[in-house]
Amino acid sequence: MNIKNKNKQELTELALQIRKRIIDVVSRNGGHFSSTLGAVELTIGMHYVFDVETDPFIFDVSHQCYPHKLLTQRWEEFETIRQFNGLSGFTKPKESNADYFVAGHSSTSISVAIGAAKAIRLKKENRVPIVMIGDGSMSAGMVYEALNELGDRKYPMVIILNDNEMSIAKPFGAISKHLSKLLAGKFYQSFKEKVDRVIRNHFPEGTTYLAKKIEESMKLITPGIIFEEMGVDYIGPIDGHDIQEIIDTLKLAKGMGKPVIVHAKTMKGKGYAIAEGHHEHWHGVGPFDKETGAFIKKASVKSATAVYSDALLALAQKHDNVVGVTAAMPSGTGLDKLIKAYPDRFWDVAIAEQHAVTSMAAMAKEGFKPFITIYSTFLQRGFDQIIHDVCLMNLPVVFAIDRAGIVGNDGETHQGAFDISYLRFIPNMILCAPRDTKTLEYAVDFAYTCSSPCAIRYPRGAFEELEFKATPFKLGRAQLLKEGRSSKLFIGYGAGVSRAIQTAQLHRDDIAILDLRFVKPLDKKLLKELANTYTNWYVFSDSQKEGGVGSALLEFLNESKITNITLTSFEYEDAFIQHGDTKEVEFSLALNPTQLVKRIK
Amino acid sequence: MNIKNKNKQELTELALQIRKRIIDVVSRNGGHFSSTLGAVELTIGMHYVFDVETDPFIFDVSHQCYPHKLLTQRWEEFETIRQFNGLSGFTKPKESNADYFVAGHSSTSISVAIGAAKAIRLKKENRVPIVMIGDGSMSAGMVYEALNELGDRKYPMVIILNDNEMSIAKPFGAISKHLSKLLAGKFYQSFKEKVDRVIRNHFPEGTTYLAKKIEESMKLITPGIIFEEMGVDYIGPIDGHDIQEIIDTLKLAKGMGKPVIVHAKTMKGKGYAIAEGHHEHWHGVGPFDKETGAFIKKASVKSATAVYSDALLALAQKHDNVVGVTAAMPSGTGLDKLIKAYPDRFWDVAIAEQHAVTSMAAMAKEGFKPFITIYSTFLQRGFDQIIHDVCLMNLPVVFAIDRAGIVGNDGETHQGAFDISYLRFIPNMILCAPRDTKTLEYAVDFAYTCSSPCAIRYPRGAFEELEFKATPFKLGRAQLLKEGRSSKLFIGYGAGVSRAIQTAQLHRDDIAILDLRFVKPLDKKLLKELANTYTNWYVFSDSQKEGGVGSALLEFLNESKITNITLTSFEYEDAFIQHGDTKEVEFSLALNPTQLVKRIK
Repeated sequence: MNIKNKNKQELTELALQIRKRIIDVVSRNGGHFSSTLGAVELTIGMHYVFDVETDPFIFDVSHQCYPHKLLTQRWEEFETIRQFNGLSGFTKPKESNADYFVAGHSSTSISVAIGAAKAIRLKKENRVPIVMIGDGSMSAGMVYEALNELGDRKYPMVIILNDNEMSIAKPFGAISKHLSKLLAGKFYQSFKEKVDRVIRNHFPEGTTYLAKKIEESMKLITPGIIFEEMGVDYIGPIDGHDIQEIIDTLKLAKGMGKPVIVHAKTMKGKGYAIAEGHHEHWHGVGPFDKETGAFIKKASVKSATAVYSDALLALAQKHDNVVGVTAAMPSGTGLDKLIKAYPDRFWDVAIAEQHAVTSMAAMAKEGFKPFITIYSTFLQRGFDQIIHDVCLMNLPVVFAIDRAGIVGNDGETHQGAFDISYLRFIPNMILCAPRDTKTLEYAVDFAYTCSSPCAIRYPRGAFEELEFKATPFKLGRAQLLKEGRSSKLFIGYGAGVSRAIQTAQLHRDDIAILDLRFVKPLDKKLLKELANTYTNWYVFSDSQKEGGVGSALLEFLNESKITNITLTSFEYEDAFIQHGDTKEVEFSLALNPTQLVKRIK
Repeated sequence: MNIKNKNKQELTELALQIRKRIIDVVSRNGGHFSSTLGAVELTIGMHYVFDVETDPFIFDVSHQCYPHKLLTQRWEEFETIRQFNGLSGFTKPKESNADYFVAGHSSTSISVAIGAAKAIRLKKENRVPIVMIGDGSMSAGMVYEALNELGDRKYPMVIILNDNEMSIAKPFGAISKHLSKLLAGKFYQSFKEKVDRVIRNHFPEGTTYLAKKIEESMKLITPGIIFEEMGVDYIGPIDGHDIQEIIDTLKLAKGMGKPVIVHAKTMKGKGYAIAEGHHEHWHGVGPFDKETGAFIKKASVKSATAVYSDALLALAQKHDNVVGVTAAMPSGTGLDKLIKAYPDRFWDVAIAEQHAVTSMAAMAKEGFKPFITIYSTFLQRGFDQIIHDVCLMNLPVVFAIDRAGIVGNDGETHQGAFDISYLRFIPNMILCAPRDTKTLEYAVDFAYTCSSPCAIRYPRGAFEELEFKATPFKLGRAQLLKEGRSSKLFIGYGAGVSRAIQTAQLHRDDIAILDLRFVKPLDKKLLKELANTYTNWYVFSDSQKEGGVGSALLEFLNESKITNITLTSFEYEDAFIQHGDTKEVEFSLALNPTQLVKRIK
């Protein structure tokens, strides 16, 4: 859509249409809602001032990219957003040339823009990268690594800091406070006090008049000083819903030939009264009634997250040394309950997985039992810290890995496919997984007793409830759920156990079923026994095949010189997995029980 | 050593003794030299004001921890530093209770201190964490994630910013410039200009006097404003070699009951005239003649790093689109040559692996061919970015992974053991390794032609030169170096190939030798053929066993339903590997050819 010839009234009307379309579709499909509504005018401004055909349009974490999709030839197709084979909920170059980069993890945008700017300089082109980044993304260290280079080398680019005072959950952290202070429209308080003090000391007479004058002058200096100190120019704050102000400011910034941060104040949920001013609740939503704002609830089975959260709360009530952390996902991980109940023992440290891991490692050293609760895909950000700050000292930290396996509509940037592969080879690490609600409770209790780092993985959504009696976890002990009369052994891990059971039920043979429970250390004794009885092993686990559960079993069989087993792993093949309803995605991977029965035959 | 009762003169004498001991031992053993010499007085100050029995002493990256070791009952044992079974070159709790935390990777210290502070608060104790962090560590994002929480929650701690104006290589980045400006002792220039402008606008008369007055006042405010803006108090800069000033300042800071940064100016190499003021050259050293400062050179075989660097330079001369980045290791990675030759195409982005990876991903998107050159152990910091920003879009970035395998005296925090395991399961990734000098050159040429992300690993030090004719790399093609008459097949990967050859030469059988070249994708065709002839496979690779080369082969054999092979992997077992001379360490792991021959029999 070419909007460069539209006048202000037409652009305002366009904003209205975009909001209408977003509310309409997201109320049916679900999606990232309030941040995208807050970014409508800013996105229009980007498209008005910059050229999407040439200038790199970079959306940080791209929760706010829906208006951009609507403005770039995806108005009709928007109907399919987050659906299987439909549009992605994030920017995706494969989907459209207008999407410069993939972004589902936060705080990558300034690094991307710097790379683009370096390329532009080498090509001697005049394109200018335009970035939109939310205040919530400002807590991750990656942003500062990028600003550190940017402030030194000063590549021309415009960075819109879309400040809705909240990030995903409530605002946290020094940067957030810093921004809030600016936005309060008041002179930065502590700075002011110092200036006042200085003035009193140096100018004993006429202080009032002078103080007032200097205070006024300082206003011109203080907003954004933290960025200016890093060598990046700052303009703002501006009203992020005033199209004219946005356009004027972006034009100015684009012409400056150096890096500029444009600080824009916006309101999350803008234009949908029910969501305005609300925080985490309206960030990412399922389908809802757009008249009332009521969520259209699915069957009210308790999610694994909720089971974990309740189990951890019970544990924390019993043991004073249980503490925990999450990284900007308090309600997504269920840690909100714990933070509320024990604000001195559970923390949200904002998007800061590296810091989350290492700070909790130190607590473990001090005798506490930290539960680091982070999604599988986001824990990738704390990978080096897991090795260097936790496992090397064998500190008994617990990693509660939520969203393990296919996560559904968020898709390829969010799938929890890799955690087994990226943790299993780390010395000292214990890896286990519950198969259902009751065993998740047991896993939490078990993790508390571990004297080494221990990771528990569990899926998004609810477990299938299983008929088999749950027993407490013992280190490195699997549970044989059922013997069988055929040569087949189904080995399930985590949520894979229920898939193994369902598949066995559809199969005509009488099949033995093992809940592996620990992929590290393996229950070698039991596995050796089972190898005597069952020679066809099938692995069911929501994880990458390379380095995953099947791989662990192959290593074990090889080391044990057990040569009579054929092993088939139904883990994920070597490819990124797209978005869509989880069942549909699993079907596309031939992972539903009916398909698996056929694959076995 | 209790130093609390010593007077200033005695402390000065102690500093002299410490320096003497360090120069003496490091000139024989090698080690981190200039940063540790620069930190002598600061360390004495720490021990004078804080109590090492109770207060957490946290040394960032701990290059500067030798004085601390000497002050904590390791004066004699210091003789053995970095030697096999001797003291570690880094802080290590297993070695001494005085070492609070392991630190070989940078920028973890403030996170550690925050964890300790949270624990202290919960235990209602009065201990105060004391951190020493160098200016070079300030570029990594992790520091800001920690400061963001610290500035908000304000746990009492003292952070000594040990500023020797350089980090490991030359100072880079906005923060570095910021600090230099403060240290220049002049009023922060751009800030001043703004104040002047404001004054001119608001006070047309009497400007000169007023400007001077305000300038003076501002001096009290501006140093450290970037930290103050984040909510952390700042004192400094102080003279980091003036013991009295250090003690007075640390006492003051300790008593403040909130987080305080004490900014101390030090000189690297202080006390050893030959090293004073020199940069990267004296950071980490091998043995040298302490009278002349001349390095005692080992056999002058060209290191793999130098081979890579020359090959990349030749490639860059031929192709304009070759670019590259390193993270604070220009001479360690050999990128210094490239940066010098092509300052617009090769960059040092400071300790900022996350940013390094993602910014180069964007350059690949723009048609450039980036070579990201980082040590195996440090690339762990860019893990999520490799998945999310490179592989998901299948961008043809090259990862040149230096220091793969055992790195010798730096030990367990630095071993390059894990890269195959943490990269192999990522979709779209190509993994290959050269066996010697000539094949490393071919690998660099090959990587240039890849249309997917490609990682090349090579060891610290020099390759063994091999008699077998090198041939260019072809995607997924192994090279059979030698057929054999026994049933044994030795499969080498990277530097493991020479170990395979040496072991074969010591063995009485006539053994076939395969240079695997690619662990992803595997040469399935050739491997299948070889499985028909050779049934006893042995894997030689400097990598972790779990998820490593052997694991890849087992996955392949299983998938291909090849069941007649017994496979033995001589990769690293599931434990962290200690420091020492590489040959000694390998011997301790039973990995030298003589030992391997016995293990095979």
